[in-house]
Parts: sequence; C-alpha cells; structure tokens
Amino acid sequence: MPISRRNFLARAGQAGGFSAAFLLMQSLGLIEAAELRPLDVAPGIGKGVSVAILGGGIAGLVAAYEMRELGYACTILEARSRSGGRNWTVRGGDTVEFIDGSRQLCSWDAGNYQNFGPARLPSVHTAILGYCRKLGVPLEVEVNTSRSTFLENDAANGGRPVVQRQVINDARGHVSELLAKCIRQGDLDQDLSPDDRTRMLDFLRHYGPLDAAGAYVGSDRAGYSKLPGAGNDVGVLNKPIDMHTLLDENFWGGILFEEAFDMQATMFQPVGGMDRIPYAFARALGQTVQYNAIVTAIRKSGNGVRIAYTHAGQARQLDADYCLCSLPLNLLRNIPNDFSAPYREVIAACEYAAAYKIAWESRRFWEQDYNIYGGLEYVSQGCNPVWLPSGGMFSERGVLVSGYGWGAFTDLPLDQKFAESRRTIERLHPGHGKELQKPMYVGWGLVPFNQGSWIQAFSSSERGLDAPPGPGYETMIQPDGPIYFIGDYASRLNAWQEGAALSAQRAVQLVSDRVRAQRA
Amino acid sequence: MPISRRNFLARAGQAGGFSAAFLLMQSLGLIEAAELRPLDVAPGIGKGVSVAILGGGIAGLVAAYEMRELGYACTILEARSRSGGRNWTVRGGDTVEFIDGSRQLCSWDAGNYQNFGPARLPSVHTAILGYCRKLGVPLEVEVNTSRSTFLENDAANGGRPVVQRQVINDARGHVSELLAKCIRQGDLDQDLSPDDRTRMLDFLRHYGPLDAAGAYVGSDRAGYSKLPGAGNDVGVLNKPIDMHTLLDENFWGGILFEEAFDMQATMFQPVGGMDRIPYAFARALGQTVQYNAIVTAIRKSGNGVRIAYTHAGQARQLDADYCLCSLPLNLLRNIPNDFSAPYREVIAACEYAAAYKIAWESRRFWEQDYNIYGGLEYVSQGCNPVWLPSGGMFSERGVLVSGYGWGAFTDLPLDQKFAESRRTIERLHPGHGKELQKPMYVGWGLVPFNQGSWIQAFSSSERGLDAPPGPGYETMIQPDGPIYFIGDYASRLNAWQEGAALSAQRAVQLVSDRVRAQRA
Repeated sequence: MPISRRNFLARAGQAGGFSAAFLLMQSLGLIEAAELRPLDVAPGIGKGVSVAILGGGIAGLVAAYEMRELGYACTILEARSRSGGRNWTVRGGDTVEFIDGSRQLCSWDAGNYQNFGPARLPSVHTAILGYCRKLGVPLEVEVNTSRSTFLENDAANGGRPVVQRQVINDARGHVSELLAKCIRQGDLDQDLSPDDRTRMLDFLRHYGPLDAAGAYVGSDRAGYSKLPGAGNDVGVLNKPIDMHTLLDENFWGGILFEEAFDMQATMFQPVGGMDRIPYAFARALGQTVQYNAIVTAIRKSGNGVRIAYTHAGQARQLDADYCLCSLPLNLLRNIPNDFSAPYREVIAACEYAAAYKIAWESRRFWEQDYNIYGGLEYVSQGCNPVWLPSGGMFSERGVLVSGYGWGAFTDLPLDQKFAESRRTIERLHPGHGKELQKPMYVGWGLVPFNQGSWIQAFSSSERGLDAPPGPGYETMIQPDGPIYFIGDYASRLNAWQEGAALSAQRAVQLVSDRVRAQRA
Repeated sequence: MPISRRNFLARAGQAGGFSAAFLLMQSLGLIEAAELRPLDVAPGIGKGVSVAILGGGIAGLVAAYEMRELGYACTILEARSRSGGRNWTVRGGDTVEFIDGSRQLCSWDAGNYQNFGPARLPSVHTAILGYCRKLGVPLEVEVNTSRSTFLENDAANGGRPVVQRQVINDARGHVSELLAKCIRQGDLDQDLSPDDRTRMLDFLRHYGPLDAAGAYVGSDRAGYSKLPGAGNDVGVLNKPIDMHTLLDENFWGGILFEEAFDMQATMFQPVGGMDRIPYAFARALGQTVQYNAIVTAIRKSGNGVRIAYTHAGQARQLDADYCLCSLPLNLLRNIPNDFSAPYREVIAACEYAAAYKIAWESRRFWEQDYNIYGGLEYVSQGCNPVWLPSGGMFSERGVLVSGYGWGAFTDLPLDQKFAESRRTIERLHPGHGKELQKPMYVGWGLVPFNQGSWIQAFSSSERGLDAPPGPGYETMIQPDGPIYFIGDYASRLNAWQEGAALSAQRAVQLVSDRVRAQRA
C-alpha cells in the first residue's frame, strides 16, 4: 500500500476533488488509519452524527468513549446487565449460567476473584494501559514469571516436579557447555574470527555459567537443595538436571513462555479484578450504555442503519448514521442483517475457539509452603497451565487456575473436569490437591452472548504475532457501507483487549475521516 | 562437623553430663543451630534472664522480638532516634546528615521515597518475609526484571541504547544458531547420542528460536521497531543485533543480573518504603527499644555483661546476663570493650565497603514516554545501575536511582557526582537528563553510626553465594563468653536483611540452649 494517506488527502484537496475521491478510496479499502495514534481528528467533528454501537465489551466501550469526546451521539446496545463482554470477573455471590441451562454459584471469600476472560495487561499494550490511567483504574504487577514455580514431566525425574529456576538455568548451562566445547575444538573456526571466538568463550563462561575448564557444574541460579543461613548453615546447590532429561518437549513451554513479546515482564492487572476496566468505562459513559438490549436485526436504512433490539421484552429500534458492530461473528450470523455478500461469507465460515478456565479457592499453600508467589506451572499430562494469583498475596486464601485451554477437554462432564484439574495440582504439589475447594468452570463456548472465546484462525497465539491474518480478515477490517466491524479479531492482536481497543480507535478514525470528507 | 546436636544432647543427657558437656561444646564452637528453623526452644525459657541488645537494626529487632516471646527481659540500645539501621527510607522533609557535617534536605513530593539501604525482598528470603507477614507489613511486587529497560554500550550500536528484550533474546538466538550448526556438522557426534542430537536440534529451534534452516533471523521475543495494531497496521520486528556486538562485556551484566538466585522473580518491597519493616518491629517492641542510646563501653562482668551508654547526654549503664551485639565492627573497634583477643583481631582488621545510592525525583518519563515499569538499566560508562521505582507506578512523578555502587566515585565532590548521575540518564534516555530534580546522595561511609555498608570480605555479591566466608568469620559466629555477635555479616547472606534475621534467630537459639543447659 504505497499511498501515504496524508499526502493523498493533501493532493486530493488541492485538486478540489477531496470528498468524492476520499469516499471512493475508503469504500475500496485503500485508506488506512495505520500509525495514527493518538487519533488525528478535529475536536467536535462528531457533532450531529449518531452512532449505534453494538456490544459493550472493550471495543464498544473504547469506541463510545472516544466518540463522545468528539461530539458523536452514541448509544451502546449491550445484551447483558453488565459491561465488559469477555472481560468478566467472577466473585463470591456471582452465578455462572450456561446456555445449556446449567448453573454454578460462586461462594468464594470476599476479596477473592477470578478473571475468566483476559487476565493480563502487558506493559507494551499502551492503548489499554492508557485508558486505565485516564479512568483511574488502579493497577498492580501481574507476576507472569516466577523462578520458583514448578514443572512436572512424567518422563523426567521420576515424575517428581522440578523448580523452574533449575530447568531454565540448567538448560542454558548445558547449551553453553556444548557450544564452548565446539569452539575450543575449532569447529567454528570458519565462522568466527579468532577475536570473536575468545569473546564468545568469555561470554559463555558468564552465560552458562561455566567453570574454568568450560564445564557446567551447576550454579546458584539453579537454586539450592538447602538454603544458606547464618553461622555454619552452608547452602547446598541443586545438582544439575542432566541434559538428556531437559531435552523433553514437556519442559520447553515452561522455559520459553515468559519470553513471548506480550508475556514479558513487566505485566499488570487491575487491583481487585479485570472488570475494573469496563466498569470504569461504564461509569464514565453513564446513560450511553443501554443494558439488557438484545439486538434482533441490523439493517441498512437510507444512508445509515436501523437496529432492531429488545429491551425488557419490548421491541425497540435505534436509527443512526453509523454502526460500530462488536458482536461475536458466530452470533452475528444468526441475527437478520443487510450485510453485503463478502461479509456474510466470512461471518458464516468463521470458527470460534471455546477457551475455558477452571478456578479453585484454597489456602495459599503455594505461598505458605513453597514460597511461590504468582507465575505459571506446567504438567506433562493434565490441566495446563496452573496459574497462581498475583492479587492478595500473603493473605490466607486465594483463587488459582488449574487449567486454561481449549479443545476436547470441554466435552468432559463437569465433575471429570474438576477431578482432572485437582489431579494436576496433586502432581505438582503432592498432598495439596485436597485443599482445593469451590471449583468454578467457565467454558466460553457455553456462555450466553458469546458461545466462543476468539476466532482461532486469526489467533496470534496459534500463528505468531507477526503472522499474516487469517482468511476473511481483509474483508472484516473494511466498512460495509455505514457499518464498521470492531473487536480484537479486527486487529493484529487477536484475543487481546489491546486489539479490541486499537480496532475501536481505528474505526473512530475512519468514521471521522469520512464525516470530514462528506462535509468538504 | 559430623556430630548431630540432637543425638549428642540426648546421649549426653542420658549420661548425666548434659550441662557441663554442652557448655564446653558450645564454648569450643562445636555446637551449631543449623537447620533449626523455626526455633527449637521451650516456651518461657527466657524467664529471669536479661539480655542487652546493642543496635536496633534488623538483627537487633528480630532478636528482641523472638526473645520477648520466650520470656527474656530485653533492652535494645539504639543510637539513633529511629529503628532500622541501614534499613533507611528517605522522604520529603527528611534530612541526610553526614559525619563531615554536610547536610541535604529532601523535598520530594509526598508519597515519593527512596530506600537508601536494602530495597529488595527476594521471595526465597523466608525469614524476613515471615516477619512481614506476622507484623502485617503490606508488600508489593518489586520489579527487578523488565524486558523493556535499556542498555547502553559506547562500543555498540553507535552508543545508542538498546532494549533489554533485544539483547537477551538475540544473544540466545545466536548461541542457539551456532550450536545447531555444530550439531548438524557432526561436531558433537562423539558427545551426544543420535537421539539426543535430534532432540537438541528440536529444542534449539524453539529455544533460539531458529528458522527451518537453523538460522536465527529475529523473533517477536526481541521486540518490534513498529508495534502491531488494528486493521493493516502490521508489526515490524526489530532486526537482530549481530553477535559480535553482543559479545561485549558491557552487555553481560544486564543480561544475567536477573538470574542470580537472590535477584530472581518474584521479588517484593514493602508498600511505602522498606522502613515499614523496622517500624513495625518497633511498634511491637514498644519500650524494649531505647533510642538515642549511644554505647560507650562493653564490659564482661561476673557471668554477664555491663554496658555503658549515654542517653540525652547522661551516662547510664545496663547490666545483663547476655549481650547480643549488632554494632558495625568498624565502629565497635573504637568502643572500649572486654572482647577476647581473637575477636579484637578480627574487629581491628575488617574492612567495610562504603556503598552509595544517588536518587532523583522526576516526571516518570520512563513510564509515560518509554513504557518502562520498574527494572534496571545499565550504561558502559557511568553511574550503574539505573533502578526504576516499583512503587507508585502510573503516578505523575517518581524517584529513580542513577548510581548504586561503591569505590572511588564516593570521593568526587557532590556536584560532580550529581552531574555524572544525570549524564547517565541522558545516555540512556536522551533529552530526559534535564527532567531530573532534587538529587539526594547517601554514601554509607559518611552516615553516622554506620560509616560503612557491609564487610566486603564477607560479601556474597563479590564472592558468590556459596563461597566460603571471609577471614574472621568463624571467630565472629561463636560467642565471646556472654556476648554474641549478630548481623548480616554473621551469616552466609552478607548484606541482606535475611542474613541479619537468621543470625539473630541463631543467637536466640544458642543463648536458649545455653540457658537450658545451665539449668539442667
């Protein structure tokens, strides 16, 4: 896409054909809002323009928040009695109801909670963090990485769990020893200059670390079998885990997860639950959000849209100049609509994953008995990962996740799910499986108004962050007449709140560009 | 030390020679309190026994806290008007006074502070964390590791700073590529089985990560030059830094610091300042702590001790059955005493380091302009490290450290120190050096009642955690008659609060064992 939008607009404006040319370009999908952060929009541009926003998740909330600032008359139609969509925090007193009619009542202690949707805010996600700052949502560090968490591998160490600091540091030690050996043998003389060979050997001595003979013989980095203390209380280092054992696929996930770009420290979470974000938006938006409003039809009407919905059982309608639609595509296909053929095809074909989490309340045995504070644990067979809470550390009881995934597991009966989840904890922390109480299961495939978690084909976690988007993506990111599709799936940050926020900002930009062009 | 204390005591007790044998053994330094956590002491053992505790830092406070629980009559003599010793938090309104008569008044905003002494609580330091829990000191995560912090190296990248995620992940990528090449070339056929070679190549493909051809061509782990966004806002990965550049010693510290055992995530700090710990102890201890009490002589007297001190200019004395002495050895040598010759020799010879920190208040440009939240930054020439605050994140202003070290730098005039410190920030974050305001310098060599930070020869940071202790250690950890020396230096965790706490617990155990033996 070689055209610079700013240059194009300038030239088009000079030539007098600004408005028509712009509208043509945007309708052809040739005009992008890329690299326009913060929004490049004239104050008050939205005055006299009405917008129907379908869905009060992060995308809808961000869109309404930005558009109100610009003078647009916005209405969010939200099917639930709460804002947030998949950003859903469950606490004691809450009920989890599924579309199959099953119900779970949560009875955790006051202060305990689980974020069954998004639960992490990477520090590189500047849009959503920016809203937290603007809206005054208090944040705390989310511990995604702890060197004290456990890994269990049936094929290694007799199935007894090992500590992550040991797996990570012993693996690096062995790799360094082998490479140092090759360099000393002259195997890389063709590839490295004599100076670089010397520097590399020096580096590996620190990196491993290696002893003077170039061997990895363990290190305090890999931890102690007996901690050093006072007086003659000498520390005893862990013996290195041998390389053959570490070369098992079941350890790699635990070693490398923390290095994914959007999993790297520093990570955050709102104090008290992720829903502090949508609730802060909702407070700021006031009457803009209409709850219990279930969309029943999306029609094009004149130059705008007509949205049919029910509210408290009453049929209603909302006319607007534009529509920003954040409803899940898998539900959208069952709502009567006037979408053009290409959109209908993508919407009909797209498949949603159905991620789940299982959470339990327990005495914080991981803190009190193992000195583990937050972080992730893995087993070779079972409900991965175990995710320990970053909130309420040092208090008596907390809520951990034992199982966050998708796939066939969701088909098991609930009691088998819970049994498997408990067994996972028992593998990692023998004797503590029985401390788990009050399990809660949320499978997004069964959650009303979602029936899925994210579009698997678009998923960055499956395809790599820099992977090209899945089929249909190019269609969905362009407006269908007055209708703009927003949500995490319309971004390169699929399944992240940041993607939802950025896609909403982009739609605000595109609509505003269009309003400006029409007025020119 | 092949003797098991418990077995020995049991046998000695059976033989009727318990008391005498035990006292002999302890006086010979043959009896240890190793592995006795928690304390193995009968309730109320201290009733009728008096203890003079010299110094109200962490060691003295822990000793008094434990001994009071056991019924001992304790008095802490503390020279300052506050508890904590080197655990010292400076805030707006505080004055820093040095022994040379110079003064700095701190005028930072309310809520801002700097811990000029210890500033980290590793989650593996279970003793000090246990006291935080018992005393109700609220903790928060201390971010010791952030992948977003900067490293600057004059010899690399034209002196422009690079982001830590890139240095760490590119270094691993290059190492993995070279080792994979050697394995494919057959260089390790003698060392690895065919199966392990295959597994290692698979592992390196993930570890690097490497592409199908075995090359490291970058990765999202190393970050983006342009972040991915919504619509067609495609992310652009950073180009890998070449291996030659990374093989510079100035990068190693930044890469490896986080892996030291006592620097690994999860780390903590008290909310609001490290002095929340000693102040919580002091609240619990009440009148046990006598402030402004300057010790002037330490005498052995009968079976106990007689401590001379001044209080509000008045000469006083305190008689006690035992003395637990935590005064810095470099000051102790100037206080008249009855120590035996071996102790006097160690005390006369020991050398203290004089660590310093320089702290500035500033707009949080690192957060607001660079998305860096906590963590450490390094330059090749300048005031290392830069240490960004973990407290008060997302607020407007904060206090960072630019320079935490020891050595010749302490001899520079104050204005030159501050200029060098500011230059360091300017190297890492060009244009932001001028945002630094209200510098504060604390050099422990100049702090009254310390005149030093820690005993360099005992230091774990210099010698490795599992290194044997320095000369004199074996002497100082044994009682000199009724006098027990306590403090971080009397532990394998030199310069850590954990070491101070454990050495105090050990002394409580040793004294209690002795009391029990004497009564038997």
